[in-house]
Amino acid sequence: MKNAGMLAVGTGLGGLSLSLSGSAMAQVAEKQAVMPDLPWPYKKLDPEAAAEDAYAGYYKGKCCYGVFEGIVGQLRKEIGFPYTMMPSTLFVVGQGGVADTASLCGAVNGAASAIFLVTGGMDTKKRDVAYPIIQDVFNWYEQTALPDYRPKKPLFEIVKSVSRSTLCHVSVTKWCKASGVKAFSKERSERCAWITATVAKYTAETLNKYADGAFTMAHSLTAAMKTCRSCHDEGSKLENTRGMMDCGGCHFTPKAKTAHPKF
Amino acid sequence: MKNAGMLAVGTGLGGLSLSLSGSAMAQVAEKQAVMPDLPWPYKKLDPEAAAEDAYAGYYKGKCCYGVFEGIVGQLRKEIGFPYTMMPSTLFVVGQGGVADTASLCGAVNGAASAIFLVTGGMDTKKRDVAYPIIQDVFNWYEQTALPDYRPKKPLFEIVKSVSRSTLCHVSVTKWCKASGVKAFSKERSERCAWITATVAKYTAETLNKYADGAFTMAHSLTAAMKTCRSCHDEGSKLENTRGMMDCGGCHFTPKAKTAHPKF
Repeated sequence: MKNAGMLAVGTGLGGLSLSLSGSAMAQVAEKQAVMPDLPWPYKKLDPEAAAEDAYAGYYKGKCCYGVFEGIVGQLRKEIGFPYTMMPSTLFVVGQGGVADTASLCGAVNGAASAIFLVTGGMDTKKRDVAYPIIQDVFNWYEQTALPDYRPKKPLFEIVKSVSRSTLCHVSVTKWCKASGVKAFSKERSERCAWITATVAKYTAETLNKYADGAFTMAHSLTAAMKTCRSCHDEGSKLENTRGMMDCGGCHFTPKAKTAHPKF
Repeated sequence: MKNAGMLAVGTGLGGLSLSLSGSAMAQVAEKQAVMPDLPWPYKKLDPEAAAEDAYAGYYKGKCCYGVFEGIVGQLRKEIGFPYTMMPSTLFVVGQGGVADTASLCGAVNGAASAIFLVTGGMDTKKRDVAYPIIQDVFNWYEQTALPDYRPKKPLFEIVKSVSRSTLCHVSVTKWCKASGVKAFSKERSERCAWITATVAKYTAETLNKYADGAFTMAHSLTAAMKTCRSCHDEGSKLENTRGMMDCGGCHFTPKAKTAHPKF
């Protein structure tokens, strides 16, 4: 038996201690600490604490990590295992619309993962529970003047803008237009930290409603989106696309609109 | 000591076995099975096996789960812990561009997470290793006629299309146009299963190159994108957006093009 890596383990048998080698213990740990199925347990969170943790998380691991840890970090403190075993660093990858490609906003991507973790699962019935909660957060993000949470110790003051899209680069550009500030400035980074805090807060509030059995979609598809979908989405004449993104956020520039059939 | 939930543990000390209660063992397991920092260990994978697992994974948990499990499932078999502790079901959430909102394609979202898991980390130097690998997969996805992997037992034959976007709904619509098939058909679902297999295969091939120290970006920004970025991205005159998505995939319809300043 190796002396290196020895671990003393109290067994509860009259104070008897037994030494196991590190490798043997690792094998025991692997076999016993089985990760439970989703959804993992949820306890109602303080939305403002989630927001502040998310804001700090942004400056550690950016937007997606910030929101995910804003929620999951609180649950780790409150509940412990299995949250102690979640490799949250993985969610850094959502940074800047995934690996800085500026596709899906990392804040809502992180929110989606956190929500699914505590409400979803492989079974389609569990997905049907989780997805409306996520869709509500996505619709709220597109439709609302954000950020609407001001961190306690901000670096700059931040103006609001409506993104009309869940995409990173669209959200950033809309804010650049509203603020007159450049996309790679410290102020824009601070804006995304506020967005991270704001999304974590709204996600916690929404999950708290779900925990109370009081969740309903507060932000649904707009009338304009429903009009688009009536020709393009499931069961329609064309049925040539899918989804719940705000069509008019990207499509229907004034020029493009004239080329579209009347409806 | 409880009799229920007793576990016999071989210590390696001359065959001595010690019994611990289930709850005591769970506490030991929780304390010992600390999740290691990213990146987690990688072993070169069989890209075709990853593709076939991803295809099967699509029909269990859709696109994002399919790609993630196509890679991580192989690593779980090859390496064991810590992959045995990864709650892969979480990646179901990427389904249909995250919770069916049709934003970021779940296949590339799952690829990004799998790549970051084995190449990335919190440290910015680790992110700088992971992000070019992810960006290469994203650029390849936008620029290539896909799917270019045919599963061994397909349900339908599938035509190829070029998405020019990493977005779910854009990728689907481009394929609907190329195939003449509707967006909610079984054929379209099978197409996304092929895409899932294709992305897992390319991801495994790319990670294998990285493991050999032979990774270079095979798919970089197009000349047209560089032109756009020269006025709109970091350090430019306008600097009013960010990112690496193919600008022309969504912007610059023929009508919009006439309104843009000459360049």
